[in-house]
Amino acid sequence: MEIFVYRENATKVEEGFSEADLPELLKDEEAVVWINMPQPTQADEQILLDVFHFHPLTVEDCRENRHYPKVEEFPDYLYLIVHGVRADTSPDHFNTIELDAFLGRNYVITYHHDDFRSIENVKQQISTSPIACQRGAAFLLHQILDQIVDYYSPVLDDFDERIDQLEADIFNLKRPNNSILEQIMDLKRGVLRLRRISAKQREVILRMSRGEFPLIDPQMLPFYRDVHDHIVRVTDLAESYRDLISGSLEAYLSVVSNRMNEIMKVLTIFSAIMLPLTFIAGVYGMNFDNMPELHSRFGYYTVWGIMIVVASGMLFLFWKRGWIGSAKGGEKIGRDRG
Amino acid sequence: MEIFVYRENATKVEEGFSEADLPELLKDEEAVVWINMPQPTQADEQILLDVFHFHPLTVEDCRENRHYPKVEEFPDYLYLIVHGVRADTSPDHFNTIELDAFLGRNYVITYHHDDFRSIENVKQQISTSPIACQRGAAFLLHQILDQIVDYYSPVLDDFDERIDQLEADIFNLKRPNNSILEQIMDLKRGVLRLRRISAKQREVILRMSRGEFPLIDPQMLPFYRDVHDHIVRVTDLAESYRDLISGSLEAYLSVVSNRMNEIMKVLTIFSAIMLPLTFIAGVYGMNFDNMPELHSRFGYYTVWGIMIVVASGMLFLFWKRGWIGSAKGGEKIGRDRG
Amino acid sequence: MEIFVYRENATKVEEGFSEADLPELLKDEEAVVWINMPQPTQADEQILLDVFHFHPLTVEDCRENRHYPKVEEFPDYLYLIVHGVRADTSPDHFNTIELDAFLGRNYVITYHHDDFRSIENVKQQISTSPIACQRGAAFLLHQILDQIVDYYSPVLDDFDERIDQLEADIFNLKRPNNSILEQIMDLKRGVLRLRRISAKQREVILRMSRGEFPLIDPQMLPFYRDVHDHIVRVTDLAESYRDLISGSLEAYLSVVSNRMNEIMKVLTIFSAIMLPLTFIAGVYGMNFDNMPELHSRFGYYTVWGIMIVVASGMLFLFWKRGWIGSAKGGEKIGRDRG
Amino acid sequence: MEIFVYRENATKVEEGFSEADLPELLKDEEAVVWINMPQPTQADEQILLDVFHFHPLTVEDCRENRHYPKVEEFPDYLYLIVHGVRADTSPDHFNTIELDAFLGRNYVITYHHDDFRSIENVKQQISTSPIACQRGAAFLLHQILDQIVDYYSPVLDDFDERIDQLEADIFNLKRPNNSILEQIMDLKRGVLRLRRISAKQREVILRMSRGEFPLIDPQMLPFYRDVHDHIVRVTDLAESYRDLISGSLEAYLSVVSNRMNEIMKVLTIFSAIMLPLTFIAGVYGMNFDNMPELHSRFGYYTVWGIMIVVASGMLFLFWKRGWIGSAKGGEKIGRDRG
Amino acid sequence: MEIFVYRENATKVEEGFSEADLPELLKDEEAVVWINMPQPTQADEQILLDVFHFHPLTVEDCRENRHYPKVEEFPDYLYLIVHGVRADTSPDHFNTIELDAFLGRNYVITYHHDDFRSIENVKQQISTSPIACQRGAAFLLHQILDQIVDYYSPVLDDFDERIDQLEADIFNLKRPNNSILEQIMDLKRGVLRLRRISAKQREVILRMSRGEFPLIDPQMLPFYRDVHDHIVRVTDLAESYRDLISGSLEAYLSVVSNRMNEIMKVLTIFSAIMLPLTFIAGVYGMNFDNMPELHSRFGYYTVWGIMIVVASGMLFLFWKRGWIGSAKGGEKIGRDRG
Repeated sequence: MEIFVYRENATKVEEGFSEADLPELLKDEEAVVWINMPQPTQADEQILLDVFHFHPLTVEDCRENRHYPKVEEFPDYLYLIVHGVRADTSPDHFNTIELDAFLGRNYVITYHHDDFRSIENVKQQISTSPIACQRGAAFLLHQILDQIVDYYSPVLDDFDERIDQLEADIFNLKRPNNSILEQIMDLKRGVLRLRRISAKQREVILRMSRGEFPLIDPQMLPFYRDVHDHIVRVTDLAESYRDLISGSLEAYLSVVSNRMNEIMKVLTIFSAIMLPLTFIAGVYGMNFDNMPELHSRFGYYTVWGIMIVVASGMLFLFWKRGWIGSAKGGEKIGRDRG
Repeated sequence: MEIFVYRENATKVEEGFSEADLPELLKDEEAVVWINMPQPTQADEQILLDVFHFHPLTVEDCRENRHYPKVEEFPDYLYLIVHGVRADTSPDHFNTIELDAFLGRNYVITYHHDDFRSIENVKQQISTSPIACQRGAAFLLHQILDQIVDYYSPVLDDFDERIDQLEADIFNLKRPNNSILEQIMDLKRGVLRLRRISAKQREVILRMSRGEFPLIDPQMLPFYRDVHDHIVRVTDLAESYRDLISGSLEAYLSVVSNRMNEIMKVLTIFSAIMLPLTFIAGVYGMNFDNMPELHSRFGYYTVWGIMIVVASGMLFLFWKRGWIGSAKGGEKIGRDRG
Repeated sequence: MEIFVYRENATKVEEGFSEADLPELLKDEEAVVWINMPQPTQADEQILLDVFHFHPLTVEDCRENRHYPKVEEFPDYLYLIVHGVRADTSPDHFNTIELDAFLGRNYVITYHHDDFRSIENVKQQISTSPIACQRGAAFLLHQILDQIVDYYSPVLDDFDERIDQLEADIFNLKRPNNSILEQIMDLKRGVLRLRRISAKQREVILRMSRGEFPLIDPQMLPFYRDVHDHIVRVTDLAESYRDLISGSLEAYLSVVSNRMNEIMKVLTIFSAIMLPLTFIAGVYGMNFDNMPELHSRFGYYTVWGIMIVVASGMLFLFWKRGWIGSAKGGEKIGRDRG
Repeated sequence: MEIFVYRENATKVEEGFSEADLPELLKDEEAVVWINMPQPTQADEQILLDVFHFHPLTVEDCRENRHYPKVEEFPDYLYLIVHGVRADTSPDHFNTIELDAFLGRNYVITYHHDDFRSIENVKQQISTSPIACQRGAAFLLHQILDQIVDYYSPVLDDFDERIDQLEADIFNLKRPNNSILEQIMDLKRGVLRLRRISAKQREVILRMSRGEFPLIDPQMLPFYRDVHDHIVRVTDLAESYRDLISGSLEAYLSVVSNRMNEIMKVLTIFSAIMLPLTFIAGVYGMNFDNMPELHSRFGYYTVWGIMIVVASGMLFLFWKRGWIGSAKGGEKIGRDRG
Repeated sequence: MEIFVYRENATKVEEGFSEADLPELLKDEEAVVWINMPQPTQADEQILLDVFHFHPLTVEDCRENRHYPKVEEFPDYLYLIVHGVRADTSPDHFNTIELDAFLGRNYVITYHHDDFRSIENVKQQISTSPIACQRGAAFLLHQILDQIVDYYSPVLDDFDERIDQLEADIFNLKRPNNSILEQIMDLKRGVLRLRRISAKQREVILRMSRGEFPLIDPQMLPFYRDVHDHIVRVTDLAESYRDLISGSLEAYLSVVSNRMNEIMKVLTIFSAIMLPLTFIAGVYGMNFDNMPELHSRFGYYTVWGIMIVVASGMLFLFWKRGWIGSAKGGEKIGRDRG
């Protein structure tokens, strides 16, 4: 448990308090107290219950680690759960970590089982300058939320890049394989999760930014609205990624289907040329006594001629149908767009 | 019919009353009376009508067993239907059982045709400690609802596991078969049912948790909100399972389509190599009198040479098209992601 | 036109009135008058206009027979259209019939071009006991609506059964044929129609059950809420049938696709085994003078040996790929689930 | 510009006024003036601006011809745009024409670049009887709207018929061709357009029918509600046509897929029978010196025997798999449903 | 930074002011001041903060360039972000540029990093006539918004044309290739982006047009409603383009599937005719000593006869199945619709 205290008109944020100082600190209505509880112990939870008199259910909610973002109002505090992105998250294994926070008149409590880069950033920030604390507890909380939402940006860029890469892979696909399919599925799952989490988060921030809670001063609202704008961008992009990924799946299926067409065409062309030739050869392999052609002097060469005519005829037919040779046409279109 | 009575400041919950004691018990406004009716008889229903004066239609609703969750307010009682999961339910045969409950000022009535593990748990709990009754009837009902919703968790885990297993099965699919398809269909049906039921249930709990009914004291609302949070998690997961399952179907179709591609490629490669060779052999099987090649000394070996060249050429062509040999490329991508 | 009159405290419902008695009957505020107009004539319509002074447009609406369910409030009467199921309807030719009804302070008018089993039932019911009339006109109307909604149940069961049958058919499909497809299309159309009608009907009953109309006494609302619950079940099931049917279509397409895979595999296996063998036979059918193998003593047997080796090798390869023999694996999974 | 005037208690609608009479005519508060402007000139627009003092933007809106239906309220007039169906429209080239209308206390102005059959009808109607004008300007406008909406009915019937025809074509499909696909696409586009237009139109009429505008007397509302009912039917049918057409596409794809299955089966059956036979023939076409079978007396007949056995075995195998002969089963199902 | 000032009753818009004149200019409540900031510098931003006292967060929002359209109300100004289309945008690379604008009682500020054709147009307009400024700041802003929305029209036409071209390409498709698929994907992405942006923009304009902000005089609302109508048309068309493009994808897949059918049919017809003939030839290529047919005089010709019969039989069979020759039927349907 780390305690940071900013007293009015102070030039520095004080540190190094212990939990015994808390009741004293909280009495100073003009101070801003931030209690950060990383990897909280049972003693920490007891403080939440005994010193802050939080509702037992909210403390229980803190302990559990599988809640969606939400905000709950109690007579003299707000309880909220927000999700940050894991430091080691990737688009195909997108995952979030949970931050429980309490906002009182003159204090902010952050409670988290996982490391939060945003918390570290704010700690560092207030150790150099007390600006983040000067406008009160709600502003301090806004700083933390702002940092959390900002960490979504690189993940969104990762998604963007991965989807682009995926589409390039699909259109350059050498042979259909399940690995691309698995990538699509993983990305889709990641995007769905991102969308779900950020939609809930957006609602939490929306409620905080529209003046619903008296604990957040109207002067603070533009700051929360700013966070809200950022999270709206996250949800909007998540939505568009979902569209792009389902488009990728369609593209993949189409590319696979085109390849099948190509394969079938090769097979058909080979069969349609070779089967008649083989038949002709078969005919003159028959052992009838009376087959005049066999004894004619140029019979063999004539048959070769016939075979060449048949094969050329077939090739011409397929060329006219656009099955062969018109590849250039197709490629030209492709090149125009390059 | 089992009757449990907690009188104010008592240290134990009393049992062993009969229905004749009911009018007397209900008069004590400070007591909490729980009447549990498992496999109810017509006599039980008569009590609901005569002693409690419930609306005949609600009693009829109790008797029928195919209602969706709902809550109805009457002047001095609440009537609600909630669904619990069957003890023997499984993701592909997901099923629920119905609990009818009445909440009065100082009583709770639970009415159910099927065994309810949650009811048993609460019975056991109050037999050891009266805590669940000390805060009044609404709190007792909350305990029961909480237990019911808690039993959804293992089912959700089952769904999770089954869907994971399903996806693994799909990507390791040896041969497309209808059994996987049937599994997908069964899971989909289960998830759709879970989603439908839990969405209705969520609405029931939402109405109870937002202070709409005077019978539920504002101090009880955080407890109901807690149950609401849990059921929201159920609906959200059901929603995401639905997405995952429809993703599975797409994946399955894609995998099948990929296999088809593979099969066609094998066929095409074989045909494209064997048909020309067979044709060449056919040519020299012809019986023309005048076929100089047949009499040349190395004719036979030359033909073998031509055949090998043709076959190699074909193989090279297919290799260049990525139809053979590039399997490693595909597998490499797969391995990178492992 | 049939007229049924229940006077207060009477023990029987009176019949046999003619339209000339109507003005007199309607004056008795305590009576309940039910006018049923099956296959109404122009004279009947004139009564609606002249005796009841209904709005000409509603009377016109009655005459037409292609309206969706709706309810309209007029200063002293309610006009509603509800749909009942045809007696001879079937899931794949689902159809409804239209009932126009007017509810006044002391009368109910039912107007219908088709036979209504629910109307017949209520007629029979009041001929034996006046209960349905004792609570006033709104209760009588509720009885009729209740009967109408009840007749949806067997249709829903039919849909259930047909969809189950359909799925069984699909998974046991011997050969893809358009007949199953036509069944799916017909069922889908039926379900869409059921869903559309019942959704509109639900809204009508909802408005009647929430106390919007002063003509329906608050004491009657639980009865209308009961009808509403039933119709909600209809719409919910219709919704789930739609999901199941679209699942059926997917299943069907998948089964067809699986069969195609099977067919292609058979073709490929045959081709891949036979083509090389035929080629080998072709080689030794060549007529070169100098083919030493032909003259070796065991040449013929050696070739047979080679052919057997090639064929076995191919079979082994396909077995390893899971194209043959692993059928048991697939069936095992299927059996586990049985 | 045509001007029709109905003065109170008159027995005929007067015609033949010129624009110079307008200011005079509009002063008579009890009269009903209808100004119809077909193919309006700039002079007509000037009248709208100078005589009626309409907002310049609405006059500009009139001039443009690509607006969706809308209604706008101004202090003393309503401006509305509605769409009628073109006389020469067809389901696959569905198109609408635009009518701009102004409703004032005692006048209606209709302004349209295209011929409107509904306008012509109302003109003819009032030339024979002044009924349409007797109830005021709002009633006259209702008459026109009613006619416009009525003209959607035959188009809906056309859609109905075309979709039925389409489905019949699909199930009787001789060979898949792009023409059916183009028909589906055209119909889909038509339906989407119909749905979009009618949804906007419905909203316009809804606003007019719920008493939002004081210019429309409450006594007129049932008439507008009646128009609303009709347009609701149009949107509902458009919705259901959309479902049917997307069902048609699915059916078409399925039928094509079934045909592919049939084709592949034919190919496989032929190959699986012919390839082994050809191989056997090839074996005995080999030229080994030592092939005892060749010299046995009944060798040739034995080989024929073997061939027949192989071919029959194959046929039996395919018959057992249901690939041949079971056609009757499939057709039987089809016939049952006919 | 360019400053344009219109003083009341002036006949010209004055130019050539510097930022130092701003405080003076803004004091004149009757003037209209337009400050345009193309490629704004840090000095410009400082003016927004120091002279106009805008909220620091909105100034920060201006600087960033990836916001969606929005409007925010502050005590004495409105801040809005709208998107215009890039001059060089194309349907498959649809892109927008951002305009930040502030509306005060007597000033409009436009702030943009990219060139805006609409801004240039308004500048040119006011340089010739002060009309756009005569009705106050809100009207001037409306002029700018109107121009921005107008520039969407040619883009919509481009989309229209491209989609038409795409469909034509699909139905005339010579061979399935990924290029068409890429075009579909690009267009889809463009349309999704257009739809997203214009939906947000529509909401901004809607809020401005319904009298929500006191800074916009009620007399200005019809003008904003007019802009709203235009942007509604954009969103509606974007919606319909989305439908058309997803229809194109379906059409493309269908066309590819039809081609596959054609290919398979060719293959099957060839195989089914050639395989039996080759088999027959193979039979009489066998070397049995005792093959009476070989020695009959007309054996060879008889075999030719049999072969012709077999081939004709096959052709007849396929013709009857509609696989060959019935092409005319298919084309006839196509021609009927042309």
